[in-house]
Amino acid sequence: MESYLIHVNGKTALPSILDVHVSLNGGKGPSLGKGKNRKAHWAVRASEMSKRTFNPIRAIVDSMKVEPNHQKPLISLSIGDPTVFGNLPTDDEVIQAMKEALDSGQYNGYAPSVGYLSCREVVAGYYTCPEAPLEAQDVILTSGCSQAIELALAVLANPGQNILVPRPGFSLYKTLAQSLGIEVKFYNLLPEKSWEIDLKQMESLVDDKTACLIVNNPSNPCGSVFSKSHLQKILAVASRQCVPILADEIYADMVFEDCKYESLAKLSTNVPILSCGGLAKRWLVPGWRMGWILIHDRREIFGKEIRDGLLRLSQRILGPCTVVQGALSRILRQTSPEFYHNTLSFLKSNADLCYDALSTVCGLQPVRPSGAMYLMVGIQMEHFPEFENDVEFTERLIAEQSVFCLPATCFEYPNFFRVVITVPEEMMVEACRRIQQFCERHYESGEGSQDLECDK
Amino acid sequence: MESYLIHVNGKTALPSILDVHVSLNGGKGPSLGKGKNRKAHWAVRASEMSKRTFNPIRAIVDSMKVEPNHQKPLISLSIGDPTVFGNLPTDDEVIQAMKEALDSGQYNGYAPSVGYLSCREVVAGYYTCPEAPLEAQDVILTSGCSQAIELALAVLANPGQNILVPRPGFSLYKTLAQSLGIEVKFYNLLPEKSWEIDLKQMESLVDDKTACLIVNNPSNPCGSVFSKSHLQKILAVASRQCVPILADEIYADMVFEDCKYESLAKLSTNVPILSCGGLAKRWLVPGWRMGWILIHDRREIFGKEIRDGLLRLSQRILGPCTVVQGALSRILRQTSPEFYHNTLSFLKSNADLCYDALSTVCGLQPVRPSGAMYLMVGIQMEHFPEFENDVEFTERLIAEQSVFCLPATCFEYPNFFRVVITVPEEMMVEACRRIQQFCERHYESGEGSQDLECDK
Repeated sequence: MESYLIHVNGKTALPSILDVHVSLNGGKGPSLGKGKNRKAHWAVRASEMSKRTFNPIRAIVDSMKVEPNHQKPLISLSIGDPTVFGNLPTDDEVIQAMKEALDSGQYNGYAPSVGYLSCREVVAGYYTCPEAPLEAQDVILTSGCSQAIELALAVLANPGQNILVPRPGFSLYKTLAQSLGIEVKFYNLLPEKSWEIDLKQMESLVDDKTACLIVNNPSNPCGSVFSKSHLQKILAVASRQCVPILADEIYADMVFEDCKYESLAKLSTNVPILSCGGLAKRWLVPGWRMGWILIHDRREIFGKEIRDGLLRLSQRILGPCTVVQGALSRILRQTSPEFYHNTLSFLKSNADLCYDALSTVCGLQPVRPSGAMYLMVGIQMEHFPEFENDVEFTERLIAEQSVFCLPATCFEYPNFFRVVITVPEEMMVEACRRIQQFCERHYESGEGSQDLECDK
Repeated sequence: MESYLIHVNGKTALPSILDVHVSLNGGKGPSLGKGKNRKAHWAVRASEMSKRTFNPIRAIVDSMKVEPNHQKPLISLSIGDPTVFGNLPTDDEVIQAMKEALDSGQYNGYAPSVGYLSCREVVAGYYTCPEAPLEAQDVILTSGCSQAIELALAVLANPGQNILVPRPGFSLYKTLAQSLGIEVKFYNLLPEKSWEIDLKQMESLVDDKTACLIVNNPSNPCGSVFSKSHLQKILAVASRQCVPILADEIYADMVFEDCKYESLAKLSTNVPILSCGGLAKRWLVPGWRMGWILIHDRREIFGKEIRDGLLRLSQRILGPCTVVQGALSRILRQTSPEFYHNTLSFLKSNADLCYDALSTVCGLQPVRPSGAMYLMVGIQMEHFPEFENDVEFTERLIAEQSVFCLPATCFEYPNFFRVVITVPEEMMVEACRRIQQFCERHYESGEGSQDLECDK
């Protein structure tokens, strides 16, 4: 801090506030034109950081600029927002919880930047288990899971370090990392193994600048769910390489009935984990921006330093909306089991419907999902020689059939597209029918080469 | 983007998704141990950014560690949160607006990262005026005014550049700037001129690395309100030096009846301004985290570049809670004029009461506020030789009288303390009485020196 000189004007009988001056420059007082003056013209430029902050989905989608076929109503299977079609409202208990918080008048003021202690306690109580115990102090409430991921990245990595990110994967990891000057290294998910990680390739990417490993389970965009044994193998890599894990578990518990979700933290004995989650997907209120970080650090490898760092970073914009914080207890404790069950039944039914329909389509290779709200479909590009890539394929699908799926180039994974399965069933059926029509029209079996023929 | 090689296994009759591999390293495939491996021990350190992110209020207050006098109930005049005491509830219309948004079912999904267009339009309509017209595209909704300031700073300044910040001033400017690696230069506010800016000193700070000038009006912590002519002089400096302005106008319109609030943008003919505001203070719901940036750029000096930059940065964590967005229209249009009037009457009454009481106290020099919810009090430290500085003064005030005011060192301005005037009137009266008692006990007139005697 600069030093202050307090000048008291001795001429008056009463030292007055009027005589208190805070001087800079060692008491010499302000001097005009001391610094280099600016040139007298305007030149306001956007910062490098703002230029580095890049959302590939927006860039790709905005560049598509294609008009849907006006003969057919648009079916958008592009956005991971379960609320768009109105067929998946949140539980009434969730709405009542918000109203109760409003009526209480207790949730209008500032909360601590990491959230009310009582609300952190509620989240800890909801997710704690003997293998991975949580207390209030292990929970940081954030403005959506996006901010949870941002804080976790920002505390773990410095510019110039790198993080390991799944491919295909949610584009926000790269957007945030580049914004912060952190390098992204992609590890591969294997469609032929239900999108399990290519562990050897992933381990080969680790170097002395690797700050963390991002694991997204259940997966956006794949809809895949890792088995317990696969999760243990991931933890073994992290443990061997001493790399902490940022677990994006926003789709936690959103798995179909024939499948079991395990959190990474429950299986970890030593790897420190920041698990990011929130209300968005399971409670179907993504716009409410209620997220959290669960700090799992049983060996105290993160220690006080990472906890303090998260606290400091949280003070930049403060936490999530207090009304939602106030509603958390009732939301987590009283949402009806039927609500979760119904959502998952619906998603499973749509997933089966979509998978079964697209499996019969020549040139497409859907991968069966086990959770979340997505399904990835491989495009055998050699059978669609008209289209250069998945972007052009999906572009033309909009133009001809008014069906909008995201090309998986958005997820760093060309030659696939992603289907969102939260739409009403009849829309799902119609979308699959149109995709089939589209493929039938453009499929080419490969000239003279019988072994490329479709036998579906 | 790295190149992808798609290997199709030609041995089978049917090219299968199982045969699609995405290869790195020019097709050589993954190789273990290619990169430098990490040392096999854990060393997770918090990032430099998290260490740079520093909230001086927390640091100072946490280091105070002083117990209140258990004989007297604690009166906290420290936090700028008008909701703490329950005497300033928000308007019922505001609560009803939230319930309506909840019941509509329309505000649960993702909004665009800069907010719903219709809600941006509402804010534009509320603040537009012929001298400074606003449209929806000029408004960006943010997670509280803190995020508004963060985005504005992050888009305008690069690491290594500097910004001009008021002293005394809200500590978040420095916290955010340091977090982003931006240098802070302080310009002085003059208590003897009701906290007007020392314009010459401010102008002397400008150099070719000055990215923006932050003007906070009405002021936290001063409670001061700039006159039209002073605002015009500020604009003249910005215009002459070609420095854009970040106007922190979160206390816009919160001025007492004998005073008039003018926005900077309304008076600017050429200086580009990002005006940051929100619901927090005027509508008394700071926890709801609804803020905004109003982009004023009539000469197109910001141009597309700054707008694009703000959009990109907003995509990092997405915008504010959609329920509050959905309530905005009704909140801005239907909050009763009496509500605003009553809040301001109450604040003015408390401000007068506090100013009048402390004016009579030997050794104190309160500065009369004209708006916001604060009042700054100078401490004639030479009359309190027991205490080394304002931090010790306020520490002892807690210990003896259980009255907690923030030492203005928190605002880079030693030898003052800040009083929050939102407390119930009887608490304000009692707090002033205790402060008086405290000062009477510790005041020393200065040995043998009659001209330092208090004649109050």
